[in-house]
Amino acid sequence: MIRVLFSARPDRWDEYEAPLRRAFAAEGLDVDLATSHPPETVDYIVFAPNGPVTDFTPYTACKGVLGLWAGVETVVGNPTLTQPLARMVDTGLTEGMVQWVAGHVLRHLLNLDADIKGQDGRWTPRLPPLARERQVGILGLGALGAASGQALAGLGFPVAGWSRREKAVPGITCHHGAEGLSEVLSTSHFLVLLLPQTPATENLLDAERIALLPEGAVILNPGRGPLIDDAALLAALDSGHLAHATLDVFRTEPLPPDHPFWAHPKVTVTPHIASETRSDTAAQTIAANIARSEAGQPLLHLVDRAAGY
Amino acid sequence: MIRVLFSARPDRWDEYEAPLRRAFAAEGLDVDLATSHPPETVDYIVFAPNGPVTDFTPYTACKGVLGLWAGVETVVGNPTLTQPLARMVDTGLTEGMVQWVAGHVLRHLLNLDADIKGQDGRWTPRLPPLARERQVGILGLGALGAASGQALAGLGFPVAGWSRREKAVPGITCHHGAEGLSEVLSTSHFLVLLLPQTPATENLLDAERIALLPEGAVILNPGRGPLIDDAALLAALDSGHLAHATLDVFRTEPLPPDHPFWAHPKVTVTPHIASETRSDTAAQTIAANIARSEAGQPLLHLVDRAAGY
Repeated sequence: MIRVLFSARPDRWDEYEAPLRRAFAAEGLDVDLATSHPPETVDYIVFAPNGPVTDFTPYTACKGVLGLWAGVETVVGNPTLTQPLARMVDTGLTEGMVQWVAGHVLRHLLNLDADIKGQDGRWTPRLPPLARERQVGILGLGALGAASGQALAGLGFPVAGWSRREKAVPGITCHHGAEGLSEVLSTSHFLVLLLPQTPATENLLDAERIALLPEGAVILNPGRGPLIDDAALLAALDSGHLAHATLDVFRTEPLPPDHPFWAHPKVTVTPHIASETRSDTAAQTIAANIARSEAGQPLLHLVDRAAGY
Repeated sequence: MIRVLFSARPDRWDEYEAPLRRAFAAEGLDVDLATSHPPETVDYIVFAPNGPVTDFTPYTACKGVLGLWAGVETVVGNPTLTQPLARMVDTGLTEGMVQWVAGHVLRHLLNLDADIKGQDGRWTPRLPPLARERQVGILGLGALGAASGQALAGLGFPVAGWSRREKAVPGITCHHGAEGLSEVLSTSHFLVLLLPQTPATENLLDAERIALLPEGAVILNPGRGPLIDDAALLAALDSGHLAHATLDVFRTEPLPPDHPFWAHPKVTVTPHIASETRSDTAAQTIAANIARSEAGQPLLHLVDRAAGY
């Protein structure tokens, strides 16, 4: 009998209980899944940051904490968390991100906004550029960045990627380090932010780095709000240096109704929908990871505590 | 010395002269390219339907007519045309079509219209379906249909294709014949029309066939206007059976300002921009095809006169 504690908001329990029970059964695991267990008896915690567990100290037998989300910035610094922490890597979440990124990059390439808003009876053909004529830069080459970049490469875009540490991703020209960042920024017409939120990435897109982008570049941020210096972004849009910003994440969510992003003609706000964990596939990921651990293997997708992601 | 006659509108000559001269030189061909030659001396005609040549009879030595466009419906029935006729298959044209199709399918999947029009300060998250949950049907598996279908399959969509004759395209579930058409229509949430215009395809999408589509389906027509019965399409949109139609081609172009498509809330008109021959890549295609012919091989992309495409 494996005891799994589900610690998240009550509406998440409604969403996840049945998919998790199905996934545990499919893995052949005998699991006692509940939203409450005596702490010292808990084997694993399925965790979201806004649930009841904030102090991990009493969970003395716990073999792993399995996050429901890809971003772990709100829990990774918790000093009571000494158990292994696994980030969510969910096929549904990755697929959702890929289609958001591909959809919005193609939207900007084709200028779909003009088609959608301009149904005024005027026949004014304008030939869009070809994908191969516009480089996409992806900052962050984790599961989401790599998959998004590869999908765009498949659509014909030249794709340059950047990560803190050196990486190799087929189909993407990979860069790293400070010099690599300047190279990617200065050549990317579309810039997609898929970095984790850490002290090192906060305000990474500041005025100086935004200035490196080519005239008329477009920024897409489905990653984390604090990656961008908002004031610098607005200044670069107003000066005409940037053509547009499509933002899915913000320092404050929901984005307040009076925030200048909403009314800005060169900003599109989407309400943190680029990617969300999908309960069916996420439950399968969690069950498979617990099965691995029970078979004596380390959990997959472990968070590097020092790096913060 | 190969004599090539360029027969198209004068503005096409301005656009194509330099790319064609570069492409002939790159193929090592010694070409006398002009908009006028004594007819009996002409070896090849680069042809668009609205140019000066309408009677091919005097071109007695002509080894081939090379179309500038993919659609040949206005010339294929010309009884004076006895020379081999090659359709344009241009990488730039194919790439343009693929990105129009992928962009608009993703736009409808993600409901980008709501994002673009709805910047009103209201934070209302709605999770879009995943690509894998929505089948795309492609009618027509020529160069454009096959490439578009494969790009969508690469983005995670299940893709079903239909062609008159049996075909096999990797990544696409291929159907043909009358039964195959019903199967594709009845299972496709997004339907993309990329058939040639022939007597057999006119009004192919009539009321009866539109009724086979699932409730809430979306039609995209970057192919040819007459493929759809316009009145039946409007009726299916008004009844709510279809959710949207995005149309790039029409029976009359430019689409008249008072046509009901412009003002219809469920129709997006794009002004025949889904794909256009790109002069650089098209010139290379023509030069390479003439080089083939001069080397004794048959022209590529020959039109089947009986089938009409």
